[in-house]
Amino acid sequence: MTVEATVYTSDGTTTYTDLQDARDAAGTTWVRASGATAEEMTEVASVFDVHSLSVEDVRNGVRPKTEEFDDHVFVLLKTATLRRGETTFEEEIRQRSVGFFVGDDWLVTMSMESVDAVERVWQMVVREEGRILRRGPDFTAYRVIDGIADAYFDVLDEIEDQIERVENEVTTSTDLETLETINNVRRELLSFRKLLWPSREAIGYLARGDPDQIQEDTEKYYRDVYDHLVQLVDLTETYRDLANGARDIYLNTLSLSTNEVMKKLTVVATIVLPLTFVVGVYGMNFADGPYNMPELGWTYGYPAVMLGMLAVTLILVAYFREEGYV
Amino acid sequence: MTVEATVYTSDGTTTYTDLQDARDAAGTTWVRASGATAEEMTEVASVFDVHSLSVEDVRNGVRPKTEEFDDHVFVLLKTATLRRGETTFEEEIRQRSVGFFVGDDWLVTMSMESVDAVERVWQMVVREEGRILRRGPDFTAYRVIDGIADAYFDVLDEIEDQIERVENEVTTSTDLETLETINNVRRELLSFRKLLWPSREAIGYLARGDPDQIQEDTEKYYRDVYDHLVQLVDLTETYRDLANGARDIYLNTLSLSTNEVMKKLTVVATIVLPLTFVVGVYGMNFADGPYNMPELGWTYGYPAVMLGMLAVTLILVAYFREEGYV
Amino acid sequence: MTVEATVYTSDGTTTYTDLQDARDAAGTTWVRASGATAEEMTEVASVFDVHSLSVEDVRNGVRPKTEEFDDHVFVLLKTATLRRGETTFEEEIRQRSVGFFVGDDWLVTMSMESVDAVERVWQMVVREEGRILRRGPDFTAYRVIDGIADAYFDVLDEIEDQIERVENEVTTSTDLETLETINNVRRELLSFRKLLWPSREAIGYLARGDPDQIQEDTEKYYRDVYDHLVQLVDLTETYRDLANGARDIYLNTLSLSTNEVMKKLTVVATIVLPLTFVVGVYGMNFADGPYNMPELGWTYGYPAVMLGMLAVTLILVAYFREEGYV
Amino acid sequence: MTVEATVYTSDGTTTYTDLQDARDAAGTTWVRASGATAEEMTEVASVFDVHSLSVEDVRNGVRPKTEEFDDHVFVLLKTATLRRGETTFEEEIRQRSVGFFVGDDWLVTMSMESVDAVERVWQMVVREEGRILRRGPDFTAYRVIDGIADAYFDVLDEIEDQIERVENEVTTSTDLETLETINNVRRELLSFRKLLWPSREAIGYLARGDPDQIQEDTEKYYRDVYDHLVQLVDLTETYRDLANGARDIYLNTLSLSTNEVMKKLTVVATIVLPLTFVVGVYGMNFADGPYNMPELGWTYGYPAVMLGMLAVTLILVAYFREEGYV
Amino acid sequence: MTVEATVYTSDGTTTYTDLQDARDAAGTTWVRASGATAEEMTEVASVFDVHSLSVEDVRNGVRPKTEEFDDHVFVLLKTATLRRGETTFEEEIRQRSVGFFVGDDWLVTMSMESVDAVERVWQMVVREEGRILRRGPDFTAYRVIDGIADAYFDVLDEIEDQIERVENEVTTSTDLETLETINNVRRELLSFRKLLWPSREAIGYLARGDPDQIQEDTEKYYRDVYDHLVQLVDLTETYRDLANGARDIYLNTLSLSTNEVMKKLTVVATIVLPLTFVVGVYGMNFADGPYNMPELGWTYGYPAVMLGMLAVTLILVAYFREEGYV
Ligand SMILES: [Mg+2]
Ligand SMILES: [Mg+2]
Ligand SMILES: [Mg+2]
Ligand SMILES: [Mg+2]
Ligand SMILES: [Mg+2]
Ligand SMILES: [Mg+2]
Ligand SMILES: [Mg+2]
Ligand SMILES: [Mg+2]
Ligand SMILES: [Mg+2]
Ligand SMILES: [Mg+2]
Ligand SMILES: [Mg+2]
Ligand SMILES: [Mg+2]
Ligand SMILES: [Mg+2]
Ligand SMILES: [Mg+2]
Ligand SMILES: [Mg+2]
Ligand SMILES: [Mg+2]
Ligand SMILES: [Mg+2]
Ligand SMILES: [Mg+2]
Ligand SMILES: [Mg+2]
Ligand SMILES: [Mg+2]
Ligand SMILES: [Mg+2]
Ligand SMILES: [Mg+2]
Ligand SMILES: [Mg+2]
Ligand SMILES: [Mg+2]
Ligand SMILES: [Mg+2]
Ligand SMILES: [Mg+2]
Ligand SMILES: [Mg+2]
Ligand SMILES: [Mg+2]
Ligand SMILES: [Mg+2]
Ligand SMILES: [Mg+2]
Ligand SMILES: [Mg+2]
Repeated sequence: MTVEATVYTSDGTTTYTDLQDARDAAGTTWVRASGATAEEMTEVASVFDVHSLSVEDVRNGVRPKTEEFDDHVFVLLKTATLRRGETTFEEEIRQRSVGFFVGDDWLVTMSMESVDAVERVWQMVVREEGRILRRGPDFTAYRVIDGIADAYFDVLDEIEDQIERVENEVTTSTDLETLETINNVRRELLSFRKLLWPSREAIGYLARGDPDQIQEDTEKYYRDVYDHLVQLVDLTETYRDLANGARDIYLNTLSLSTNEVMKKLTVVATIVLPLTFVVGVYGMNFADGPYNMPELGWTYGYPAVMLGMLAVTLILVAYFREEGYV
Repeated sequence: MTVEATVYTSDGTTTYTDLQDARDAAGTTWVRASGATAEEMTEVASVFDVHSLSVEDVRNGVRPKTEEFDDHVFVLLKTATLRRGETTFEEEIRQRSVGFFVGDDWLVTMSMESVDAVERVWQMVVREEGRILRRGPDFTAYRVIDGIADAYFDVLDEIEDQIERVENEVTTSTDLETLETINNVRRELLSFRKLLWPSREAIGYLARGDPDQIQEDTEKYYRDVYDHLVQLVDLTETYRDLANGARDIYLNTLSLSTNEVMKKLTVVATIVLPLTFVVGVYGMNFADGPYNMPELGWTYGYPAVMLGMLAVTLILVAYFREEGYV
Repeated sequence: MTVEATVYTSDGTTTYTDLQDARDAAGTTWVRASGATAEEMTEVASVFDVHSLSVEDVRNGVRPKTEEFDDHVFVLLKTATLRRGETTFEEEIRQRSVGFFVGDDWLVTMSMESVDAVERVWQMVVREEGRILRRGPDFTAYRVIDGIADAYFDVLDEIEDQIERVENEVTTSTDLETLETINNVRRELLSFRKLLWPSREAIGYLARGDPDQIQEDTEKYYRDVYDHLVQLVDLTETYRDLANGARDIYLNTLSLSTNEVMKKLTVVATIVLPLTFVVGVYGMNFADGPYNMPELGWTYGYPAVMLGMLAVTLILVAYFREEGYV
Repeated sequence: MTVEATVYTSDGTTTYTDLQDARDAAGTTWVRASGATAEEMTEVASVFDVHSLSVEDVRNGVRPKTEEFDDHVFVLLKTATLRRGETTFEEEIRQRSVGFFVGDDWLVTMSMESVDAVERVWQMVVREEGRILRRGPDFTAYRVIDGIADAYFDVLDEIEDQIERVENEVTTSTDLETLETINNVRRELLSFRKLLWPSREAIGYLARGDPDQIQEDTEKYYRDVYDHLVQLVDLTETYRDLANGARDIYLNTLSLSTNEVMKKLTVVATIVLPLTFVVGVYGMNFADGPYNMPELGWTYGYPAVMLGMLAVTLILVAYFREEGYV
Repeated sequence: MTVEATVYTSDGTTTYTDLQDARDAAGTTWVRASGATAEEMTEVASVFDVHSLSVEDVRNGVRPKTEEFDDHVFVLLKTATLRRGETTFEEEIRQRSVGFFVGDDWLVTMSMESVDAVERVWQMVVREEGRILRRGPDFTAYRVIDGIADAYFDVLDEIEDQIERVENEVTTSTDLETLETINNVRRELLSFRKLLWPSREAIGYLARGDPDQIQEDTEKYYRDVYDHLVQLVDLTETYRDLANGARDIYLNTLSLSTNEVMKKLTVVATIVLPLTFVVGVYGMNFADGPYNMPELGWTYGYPAVMLGMLAVTLILVAYFREEGYV
């Protein structure tokens, strides 16, 4: 079932099929609407007097936020997974909205698809492990949110792997794809940072403990999640800087390559062009005469010229080696 | 008609021709001045005690804003459409100002040209659909504003198309026009962002519900528009980053092209210049003698030299292939 | 005269020669000290109990600002005109300070040179047009300030012209002067922005209506000037972006030019060098023999070689055309 | 031992083995848990009613911060040493968390490894030097924190050495490693700045003296540490700018090198190619005739041509020297 | 003497040798400790109950700041002179700390070296010129601070000279030293800005007049110094922008130079290589025959070929002139 309700009392947890009964029952109620349809969400909303605009927020994927209503707090967060495809205009980070409605003695969680962090805590609650729901709906919401935040670190790990790979490429490759990979990483980080930033604000609001529905004891736990989100934002900036450094090195590798190519050309031309000139001289058709290339008639003329050219070549090679050209 | 008045009572909506009567009538009044002349606007202003500076704001296109007056709130927003021309000094985003004057039981909307979002809600009101005016002038204004904000997403869609096209070009083209297109997109985004930013502030002011004319129930709806504007600002930044990435790749494509050209030149020169030297050697006019190019007299001299040169060429080609030059 | 005094009563405006009399007279007093000497300014200051540091501010040209004193508000603004010279260390925007001292029923304006915006309003007042002084010293100051702000738009128009000219140059010219012009425009915009920013703050202070000397009715007018200054700041940023875009294109035009030059060189070298090698081959002095260039002896040897070389040339030209080199 | 307790009374300092006794004893208690295991930390936490989340913060290395609890202040700081390795994904700055729990008459310091700054103050306290603990737990914490901040300057000294070395390289080397070193320095500075920034905030909170546990007299000392942290942040920015300047010069050195290489090639080609053309002319096989290269038959033809070419060479060399090519 | 005390009463100023007497005397006391040793400073501090941490601040050169104590205000400022050396790791701006302790009826100024601005005011006070001390310790401190701020403008004048010189170089020189000079100027500006920024804050605090020791009349004078500091910060930004513009032009001059070099090479190669090919053709050893270069046997063959080559050369030169290559 996509919409399920459980109520915790000192006797343990009981599952309800009727939502209104679950709400009215003494004890702490959790209604979990995972992968729920629009109709199911609307029904849940009407039972708990939740505004239809909040339900639409869950469905439409606006920015993470915390909003206080008369008798409940609405927290909207998003799970994040790295999208492995290549389409430019899908956000690089796949996001799924999860809405939390935290009342005095009830909690509603709502999402269009099944969400791991919700399921894990739900299983613990129905199996009566960990005494989670006993500590209140705000603490239960914290446990789910903590799971969502933990998964953010996995996303950064994947991005880290990508940067590591690209950092190995940039010192050798002048391939345009390398630059595209770097741009991709930067986009992922930007996209992720845009998810983290409002999440941080939304949780910070709870950590300060303003809403009545957040007990003083639970504040510390939200403060802890807040610290993790701050750390995540810091990490995205560190990684962004690594990506920028990789980009600088890539661009420089290309400039170095052009420089090397030019040096090679210069070496070849500087050595060969003068030699070609010399052999051209001895190919001129001047009539014989005392001043006209007498070496053409010498016995050792040819070997002498060839050795002279060899000497010049060796000197030039030595010079270019000195200058770091070869 | 460009200035029309309608009043909602529990008996339905009635159209008035006299503005003062419309204002004095029991019920909720909406005066819509679309495509109104300066004179018409001044008349409306005097009936509803609206300051002439506000009317001038509507006419002159200053930044979106919300201003509280004694008995009404003045909200100035702008519709946006992408201008398809090329003139540098027209703003890339075509903007039309719409002024909203929200009183206790009256609403005045004012614009120099007819505006879609206004017309659509007006038709619903006069056809008594959707019970809009019944929920108050602040809710009616919300409905129009929501329509304006929705149209902003269409503008971004067009910009998205332009980026998509340019992203396909940048990896192959070194055409200066490609860079100009990218600059154009960046300018559109900058221009659009400058429209969105103050709009966000103006709506945020209403969402916080400070003005008396905004009912508590309506605040949530303005909060929803506010969320959309925040999302739009986010998107302009994402797109700006895509444009910057495209620009980086464009510039790099040009550097790569120069690098490739240099490599080609180097390969040709490195292979051909030494060969030319060799044939130059055999073109020298040294007198016959035991040490003077005896191969000139050999039977297989010429084929041997040609094969030697072929061998050198093949070795060099292999070397350049290894180095990634060809 | 450089220092003049006029007093408005219900009977009209009267000119005074004695400043103390003008101050003591019933009615609203305006003392205009335009192009006044230090001594004249000091005299005015002592009559109206204005601090000597404020007078020095007018003379020394510090940043625009608003300062509240016990019985008056001091507003310092600056007129702006574009300087057409070339000296690096003169600010690009020529600025003239105008001081406004707004008391309960008196206004003093002070400047070292005659200022258009002051003169225009002064003439209207003494000719008893527009009932300006009747609406109070704060409203009269507003009228002058509005004139100063309007003139700012003329400065931006001139900068716009410069950008337009430079935008036409950048796609074709690699002239260093073009870059210098762009830098000049950016400097003008920076200089102008530095003038606008504190002006905005100074007027914003009046628009919020904190000083007692600003009547509630006049606030709206200052709010209007404030909106114009906000718009001007926005425009300087748009223009700065245009200038940056022009700079990007200029730099790219140069890179493209280098790329083009390299391509030309490569085409020439790739075609001519191998041909030169071929003719070098046929210039070698191998003794006649069955394997030694038998084509030298053929009847059609020469035309065949020439046609062969022509074919190679045509093939290479086709190849380079394909690659976009020529 | 990793967990030790000492209590100061007017009779001197006494060492306790039981933590609860140490807390209950009259006098000022310091429990130092350096290099403590998770179990030991948990025990300390339970004796002093410290929240388990704070202990986890010490163990997990989140950002420096100050948090107020009911009866104590929790300060988390980090020591910094430069990591000399090369692995990309270890933070360049090695960090060790130190937690301070400052109660009314007790102090707990906690760290996973032994920390110099803690040990030094601890030795002074147990040897009853410097009367540190007598001035309260807040002053004792200040002494340790001051030691940690002093060590930050050593880290900057090391980074300074690296910059100095790299600044000597950049004007001569076009080695890719130089750029990688610069990127490394920038990363260290970024990493260090990210450590300093929240530390500054955490100490600033104590310097403002809000928590009850910080005596008015001690505030001044925290203000002093605060000033040092501000200075450190300033220095990281100065060094970052030096690193950026070095990077600019490196990139320019490479461009200059390419420019030099091109100039060399141009000089060689411009001198040698025309000469080769000239000798090619005299190698043409035109039949003898009055207009066909009569110089071929002159007695001084050959020396004249050679001298002519020498003259052209010298003129070109002079020209290129003038132009700064050689 | 390095520590001197003077007391102003209505009878004039008296010099004291005993500091405690000077403090206890009726009247306004100024103790000037210029170039004082650590011991002298400590003595002064103990007489006036100044905290030893403040004295250390004067000695250690932390950032400019204002700190309020129970019975005095502590202001720390710095004089600035441009250092003319070349060592990288000395701050480019030589700074000397001056501490001001402003009590109700006493002033202490403290610095490790003699400071011009202090000496000048001190001489006026002991010579009983200008009635400075009569107006209170806060006014006396203002006079010294005003002198320090005036000297800042001299520093900017020197930097301005450097920029002017470098701006003349950048359009012609591709010398690496030019870039290093620009980097140096940017560093000076950065260093200076870092001095000005906290000074502005420190003086702004006095200008707002919060401390009891600052009389209402004196506030205006501090406001005036504040305005000057704001202006100085503005100027550093303008100059930084000039430096950045110079850097852009320098980098472009280098690119232009490479472009020019390439053009030269291309012109030479494009003209000479084909000509060399032509003369190579006529150097081929084809046997005489009807189709084999009949022009070799023509009377005017040689002049015709030479004129043909000249024509090609002229056409190419015209083309390259058209294209802006020569
Ligand atoms: Mg960062
Ligand atoms: Mg960043
Ligand atoms: Mg950033
Ligand atoms: Mg970096
Ligand atoms: Mg970076
Ligand atoms: Mg960055
Ligand atoms: Mg960036
Ligand atoms: Mg962004
Ligand atoms: Mg941006
Ligand atoms: Mg951005
Ligand atoms: Mg980016
Ligand atoms: Mg970007
Ligand atoms: Mg950007
Ligand atoms: Mg902008
Ligand atoms: Mg900017
Ligand atoms: Mg900007
Ligand atoms: Mg831009
Ligand atoms: Mg910009
Ligand atoms: Mg830009
Ligand atoms: Mg900085
Ligand atoms: Mg930075
Ligand atoms: Mg920085
Ligand atoms: Mg810099
Ligand atoms: Mg920098
Ligand atoms: Mg910087
Ligand atoms: Mg600036
Ligand atoms: Mg700046
Ligand atoms: Mg900057
Ligand atoms: Mg600039
Ligand atoms: Mg700049
Ligand atoms: Mg800037």
